[in-house]
Amino acid sequence: MGLVVGADIGGTNIKLVGVTEDGEITAQTQVETRDSIADTTEKRRYWVQALREGIEAITRQSGGAVTRVGIAAPGLVSVDGLTIRHMPGRLSGLEGLCWTDELGVGDVVPVINDAQAALVAESWIGAASQVQDAFLLTLGTGVGGAVMLDGAVRRGPTGRLGHLGHMTLDLNGTADICGTPGSLEVFVGEATLAERSAGRFTTYPELIGEYRTGDIAATELWLRTVRALATGISSLVNVLDPQLVLLGGGISTASELGPPLKTYMDELEWRPDGDAVPIRTAELGTYGGAVGAARRAMGGASGDHVTGAEALHRTSY
Amino acid sequence: MGLVVGADIGGTNIKLVGVTEDGEITAQTQVETRDSIADTTEKRRYWVQALREGIEAITRQSGGAVTRVGIAAPGLVSVDGLTIRHMPGRLSGLEGLCWTDELGVGDVVPVINDAQAALVAESWIGAASQVQDAFLLTLGTGVGGAVMLDGAVRRGPTGRLGHLGHMTLDLNGTADICGTPGSLEVFVGEATLAERSAGRFTTYPELIGEYRTGDIAATELWLRTVRALATGISSLVNVLDPQLVLLGGGISTASELGPPLKTYMDELEWRPDGDAVPIRTAELGTYGGAVGAARRAMGGASGDHVTGAEALHRTSY
Repeated sequence: MGLVVGADIGGTNIKLVGVTEDGEITAQTQVETRDSIADTTEKRRYWVQALREGIEAITRQSGGAVTRVGIAAPGLVSVDGLTIRHMPGRLSGLEGLCWTDELGVGDVVPVINDAQAALVAESWIGAASQVQDAFLLTLGTGVGGAVMLDGAVRRGPTGRLGHLGHMTLDLNGTADICGTPGSLEVFVGEATLAERSAGRFTTYPELIGEYRTGDIAATELWLRTVRALATGISSLVNVLDPQLVLLGGGISTASELGPPLKTYMDELEWRPDGDAVPIRTAELGTYGGAVGAARRAMGGASGDHVTGAEALHRTSY
Repeated sequence: MGLVVGADIGGTNIKLVGVTEDGEITAQTQVETRDSIADTTEKRRYWVQALREGIEAITRQSGGAVTRVGIAAPGLVSVDGLTIRHMPGRLSGLEGLCWTDELGVGDVVPVINDAQAALVAESWIGAASQVQDAFLLTLGTGVGGAVMLDGAVRRGPTGRLGHLGHMTLDLNGTADICGTPGSLEVFVGEATLAERSAGRFTTYPELIGEYRTGDIAATELWLRTVRALATGISSLVNVLDPQLVLLGGGISTASELGPPLKTYMDELEWRPDGDAVPIRTAELGTYGGAVGAARRAMGGASGDHVTGAEALHRTSY
């Protein structure tokens, strides 16, 4: 199959990787997303050009021809698996953009939800390679999610399966971008941090820095955030029965997360046999979504190798 | 295969059905569970005797030999699929009781969680027979749940998959029997109704009767209950991406449920394509769990016909 490129279109940067079928990452690069470009046509032109140049750069660095490309992006993927069909709020211009038409590499350029892509990558060559049932929470501006069952990352009939950030934790709380009141995303996403701290913090590194000094308000807010995360994980454990919980994104690697998270999980998790479900950090980091997109472009994504557009009409990867 | 008997051991009654492989229900009967029998050995002896007599009665009524028996019960099923291994609070004596040893009908007498059994039955010959992805909430003393994905009702690695009542809706709320704070079960289960009404109501028929008269406190409590249910369903739609939501048990057939539930779903459900996920009442009613247990005893339960104990070591039915 040769070299496959995965590209992950995030709110800030577009990450690209070159990956072989054996899971060897031969090259990686990133460029700005420039979501601030006001004109949608111009922004689309910039993205397509950026991807073409990124693919060329990866070809040069890897010293081999790129045979396929896969795209990861936030939002809901269309049923044919070729575009993002729904992405409210950010990245205007992404909806309906058909990369198969624009890039002309391989038969098709499949599109996969970014959190689902990250879990595909972890299942392939990362922290979830030894389990069949797991879920991933990506802790960033928002809270993304993805679910693997019986070894397959699931998209569900409409692509919505695994939108774990949009689960209510406080039925009297503020609605999130999906209209879900007091959701996990409202309690844990960085986007609401300023509001939750009465304007004092806008990023988690700031909050965690003050937590480290023992600042009382910062301590309370951080611990409340971690407790909300533990409450969400505990609920999802009861709904999904995973063998492993993976955390990715911004705060997942902070050393200040583990101890309070363990304390709260000990309190909140239902453990009928006395066993805690292991919680681990995603291993592939920044490039996880891009690796998963490349894996998707290889056909299937969880071991069942299929190719061509008809293979994209499926409810699981 | 001939006639198969399914038995559903509930808190109040044991329901038994005789079912053919074509899904024809040839006989049904029920006896008291008598959970109040204090001595566990005596209670177990009573249950085994009740099941033996029930099987005989169904044999007589159906005019054919019973070749297999399946059991549905609340709690977590053991990995070998032959016993309930964990059932806190009620039905002491049920944990570890091996029906294969006690009844001696067929090779094995498989045991299946009661809510999962009800969804198996709905998927087989009920309201979910035309879809592949659905979840069921059973609204009774507590709130049970079950999940079907890709046409298979899932039990998950530990049997916990689909414990949908144990999902937090208020992270500051009272813990339920699984230790989950402010769960769907806490807000909707009949067990908490007395507490939620300051002792005024202990059953939903009482509450709904007063709601019908326009009583202000009853109206508020009923609408708050339905809103909590809608919040839970909306969250689960985002997590599980079903084609259909099924409601079973006590209040699911009340005509007073539909209109407020629709109002709240219109407000709370994320509808990226404008479509509401249909919500329907389970069709098989009281005997759904027993029918699902019979289907389980037929081998598989979702179309894949397998027999023998080794076939029970699976993470989906």
